[in-house]
Amino acid sequence: MEKSQMMELFEKAKVASKNSYSPYSKFPVGAALLMEDGSVVTGANIENRSFGLSNCAERSAVFTALSAGYRTFKALAIATPKADYPVGPCGACRQVLTEFAPAGTPVCFGASEDNMVFTTLGELYPYDSLHELGSDT
Amino acid sequence: MEKSQMMELFEKAKVASKNSYSPYSKFPVGAALLMEDGSVVTGANIENRSFGLSNCAERSAVFTALSAGYRTFKALAIATPKADYPVGPCGACRQVLTEFAPAGTPVCFGASEDNMVFTTLGELYPYDSLHELGSDT
Amino acid sequence: MEKSQMMELFEKAKVASKNSYSPYSKFPVGAALLMEDGSVVTGANIENRSFGLSNCAERSAVFTALSAGYRTFKALAIATPKADYPVGPCGACRQVLTEFAPAGTPVCFGASEDNMVFTTLGELYPYDSLHELGSDT
Amino acid sequence: MEKSQMMELFEKAKVASKNSYSPYSKFPVGAALLMEDGSVVTGANIENRSFGLSNCAERSAVFTALSAGYRTFKALAIATPKADYPVGPCGACRQVLTEFAPAGTPVCFGASEDNMVFTTLGELYPYDSLHELGSDT
Repeated sequence: MEKSQMMELFEKAKVASKNSYSPYSKFPVGAALLMEDGSVVTGANIENRSFGLSNCAERSAVFTALSAGYRTFKALAIATPKADYPVGPCGACRQVLTEFAPAGTPVCFGASEDNMVFTTLGELYPYDSLHELGSDT
Repeated sequence: MEKSQMMELFEKAKVASKNSYSPYSKFPVGAALLMEDGSVVTGANIENRSFGLSNCAERSAVFTALSAGYRTFKALAIATPKADYPVGPCGACRQVLTEFAPAGTPVCFGASEDNMVFTTLGELYPYDSLHELGSDT
Repeated sequence: MEKSQMMELFEKAKVASKNSYSPYSKFPVGAALLMEDGSVVTGANIENRSFGLSNCAERSAVFTALSAGYRTFKALAIATPKADYPVGPCGACRQVLTEFAPAGTPVCFGASEDNMVFTTLGELYPYDSLHELGSDT
Repeated sequence: MEKSQMMELFEKAKVASKNSYSPYSKFPVGAALLMEDGSVVTGANIENRSFGLSNCAERSAVFTALSAGYRTFKALAIATPKADYPVGPCGACRQVLTEFAPAGTPVCFGASEDNMVFTTLGELYPYDSLHELGSDT
């Protein structure tokens, strides 16, 4: 995937972060998934007064996409506009993301266009029993 | 809210359950939220090979709605087509739902039109420090 | 169960809250479970920089007790020393607690001895498909 | 850390898996944490009828250890006796584990002594904003 496409996806993640419900952390996050049909599904972090029931932007996007009938995605961008440095997806999100896309899936994340990390799901989630063993669950 | 409206919402929850990703439980669930502008946002349960990272249909709907900019909802219907009896929302969903709607919000759930429970968020989640104290977070 | 026994359990929950790891919420919680053999298992809330991976005190206690081989408990006390009013268990904890104890199990919670709520698991978690149907899972 | 020490820890993880409560997955897991004072804290996976509220063995061990006052650990072993191949910790556990121990912390996992993976927290959880930035939270 070309970098320009990833940057376009990142812009959509930034817009998605505006709908974040994060009164507890004050840390808005947005995520954008590129689907196989070319459409984009976004999500924001939705927190809860019981912190453990908060949901990250990446998982909001995945749950929205899967609930709409999608079963995989081609790329992911994550925007954390209020961070001073790129913040990668949390472990729970890495786990959920790898349920639906292969290790080579491109991922980018950052606070702004000037300071981003470009990687893949496989680099973020090594030792994945599911994909390493060729399962296609 | 009239029962006919709740039944209409229930039909949408049933349709939503068709997008369930539940290879581990084989138990599809669909949820439908009625929004203040009259639109409906749906969700399905999206499971994970690490069971603890599974997400219920009710929360899929909430995360989708909030990510789209909504901040509350007016009613909820839950469909569990493969159950033999009405299955209410789990505790995690009750917690997340009450973050965004008042105790009087109507909820219905069931496996089919013939065997349903009609209740409210407040009945499902008593002793809620948030709403009992008049917070409007 | 006599109130004096519940108050004794509450004292142990208060002590347990001192081991809380809650740098994000600054809201320590402690929980104490009375087991069938008369021993007490305690837990504290253990938070995470990814808020959604935080764990409540009640569930810390349950996971500790079950991991030690217990399969049920007889009573629960929850202490939230920094709250201004009694704060009940969150929905996720109600769900986990009801997996292991019947509806009549006594629960008390509060910030201090002077302002407590005495209730039961069943009152905290109505419409529980599991116990209403007599399952003994 | 010497391999013999890790194997000793692995034996304790195997024993811990016997207390697993896993009626839904039928997949018992045990975890053992070596603490700085030389003691070992174990945990098992504790599942729930609402799959998303299941807890892994690794997190059971962490929540037990932290609730007991520990704030870090020196090594981790994970046993999955019923697997045909080594199964690494899920993403949620990687996230929780890295809150409390540095990237170099040794981890081993496997189904039996004959087929194990030896790695570190940092290899399991790359791109960790917390530790990459030198935080010692």
